[in-house]
Amino acid sequence: MRVVKVPLGNRSYAIKIGKGLLSRLGYECERLKLGDRCAIITDTNVGRRYARPAFDSLAKAGFSPSLVILSPGERTKNPKSLQVCYDRLADHRLERKSFIVALGGGVVGDLAGLVAATYLRGITFVQVPTTLLAQVDSSVGGKVGVNLKAGKNLVGAFHQPRLVLCDLNTLRSLPEREYRAGLAEVIKYGIIYDAVLFTRIERDIVNLLRRDAKTLSGIVARCCEIKAEVVGKDETESGVRAILNFGHTIGHALEAISHYGKYLHGEAISIGQVTAARLSMRGADLPARDFQRISDLFERVGLPTSVRLNARQRQRFFAAMRLDKKVSDGEINFVLAKKIGRVVRGQKVADSLIAQTLDPQPETRH
Amino acid sequence: MRVVKVPLGNRSYAIKIGKGLLSRLGYECERLKLGDRCAIITDTNVGRRYARPAFDSLAKAGFSPSLVILSPGERTKNPKSLQVCYDRLADHRLERKSFIVALGGGVVGDLAGLVAATYLRGITFVQVPTTLLAQVDSSVGGKVGVNLKAGKNLVGAFHQPRLVLCDLNTLRSLPEREYRAGLAEVIKYGIIYDAVLFTRIERDIVNLLRRDAKTLSGIVARCCEIKAEVVGKDETESGVRAILNFGHTIGHALEAISHYGKYLHGEAISIGQVTAARLSMRGADLPARDFQRISDLFERVGLPTSVRLNARQRQRFFAAMRLDKKVSDGEINFVLAKKIGRVVRGQKVADSLIAQTLDPQPETRH
Repeated sequence: MRVVKVPLGNRSYAIKIGKGLLSRLGYECERLKLGDRCAIITDTNVGRRYARPAFDSLAKAGFSPSLVILSPGERTKNPKSLQVCYDRLADHRLERKSFIVALGGGVVGDLAGLVAATYLRGITFVQVPTTLLAQVDSSVGGKVGVNLKAGKNLVGAFHQPRLVLCDLNTLRSLPEREYRAGLAEVIKYGIIYDAVLFTRIERDIVNLLRRDAKTLSGIVARCCEIKAEVVGKDETESGVRAILNFGHTIGHALEAISHYGKYLHGEAISIGQVTAARLSMRGADLPARDFQRISDLFERVGLPTSVRLNARQRQRFFAAMRLDKKVSDGEINFVLAKKIGRVVRGQKVADSLIAQTLDPQPETRH
Repeated sequence: MRVVKVPLGNRSYAIKIGKGLLSRLGYECERLKLGDRCAIITDTNVGRRYARPAFDSLAKAGFSPSLVILSPGERTKNPKSLQVCYDRLADHRLERKSFIVALGGGVVGDLAGLVAATYLRGITFVQVPTTLLAQVDSSVGGKVGVNLKAGKNLVGAFHQPRLVLCDLNTLRSLPEREYRAGLAEVIKYGIIYDAVLFTRIERDIVNLLRRDAKTLSGIVARCCEIKAEVVGKDETESGVRAILNFGHTIGHALEAISHYGKYLHGEAISIGQVTAARLSMRGADLPARDFQRISDLFERVGLPTSVRLNARQRQRFFAAMRLDKKVSDGEINFVLAKKIGRVVRGQKVADSLIAQTLDPQPETRH
């Protein structure tokens, strides 16, 4: 088991990464002296496999868990689902010392986290991410939220978990498409922070794609370390944390205009990152060779790297992008790459350039 | 104009109390250098009179306000109304530097405050309380939230306003019943914190009931001072702030079992406070004479002081009380009075005693 610490003063917590950790859930919660009552929030897909082991582990450790099972998918991450959860927690009489276990991917983690942030003005929660994307990204750092029709994560809070438990075994059952989408966030850490990690992903891509446990363990832990470091420096994104949004402004807008139905988050930010990298060649002097490596790596993973929008979609795309939380005084702030492993924040980019770059002409497409 | 400061480090803010302050709203927001876009959240009753002056004052100061008008009443304070507000803010493209103006009573303030706490993970908000209850209590201290069917304020956050503007003129148009209900919170400050204030209310009750501006100005300011002092010591209610809940555990349960329709909040906590005072004679040695003064004062204001529950209502009442946020390890913590001006926290009281005290026998009723 690897342990990564998120350094946030009296709200510090551990990310534990290893095989079979789900069966330790109850033990770990007991060590943290959490209250008796708890609720496991999950979705039908994850619940089918893992609700029982999670429930049993908690019950065996003396907790009184209840189970809230939601529909899977990004569309569940909305204000209405919050209400469903609130009513269930009240039915089960969760009180201030009770806690919530978010068992699932990013959708479940973000939603359950916001429920925990607001139920009784905030109760404890534990993240048990079961997807690659959630393990390396969304379960760490305390950003919780739901989507509005107008855009992604427009409602939310900062609420740190007390523990993140990444059971690598749960990645084995992920559908191929979802697993690959998760790799988009893994690659992101290489681009924004760690050229060595990027090279390691390039080298180990075959092992990664076949979900080799040893390879995964090292890479998941490294991603968590980077996230923990960035979040530890800037919990509420007043500065450096914004680099984690590389490719996300474009990605979120693509998700919004397709009503969270067409792309998985990882797919949308794959297009977003390759587009941001292309913009970086013009706006931040990213070497063409680095752009090529970035674009190639996403392609080797089998992720989409461009999109063709018609006039109406394009209009909606820009409207959605302007609603992104990163907008300030009507201007969008982009994160651009100077080279692999190093990015700059707060870059303004003209709409026309973005439009052109999303769907490059065939002669510039590789 | 009187100014009371709420001392909370870099989140400190001013409560300004005076006649005609609504027309200064724009000027005050400008002084705080708030962002351009804003949304005024109000209800149809308050909006009919005050939305236009608030809007004009903001527009004149160079802001771009939009207006969100909700149905009046406690039943509006629910998760669904949050969603209505979120969508409207997104339509109006409020961004991180934008702000919300809560124009109305406690319902509007609590709801709009939670919207501000969660929209884009938290934006600035300004309280413009237009009821007595909101001016002396709910607009100060950053407790924001909505109700669930299961109980009051079960969903919420701590999110401090940047400014509280109490225009005493708005109290003139309050319906008599609502104004008197507000006095229940005013009397509470006397009981829990300030025997001199209690005596002053007894002495000035006639002037208070006819809403004499000078009397009101002094008393509203004193209540705000007490609230500011208590909140300054304990923002998130880990200790002393709990004294503000005197009479509220019972009051909230009464509101919940009548589905927020029968009692105004002030009426419910009037019953709650007189019941808590009666319990205090047994549990905290409150002198019978002090109990009598408390009970008499609520009666002189014309507020209800007891309630008769049938067996089914009683059962639902206790279930609702157990869902109160103050419950810890299944036990309810009561605030009891030792004498007028002094209370003790964390008192356990048997259910049977509460039931008996809610509706005292005729011979013990005064």
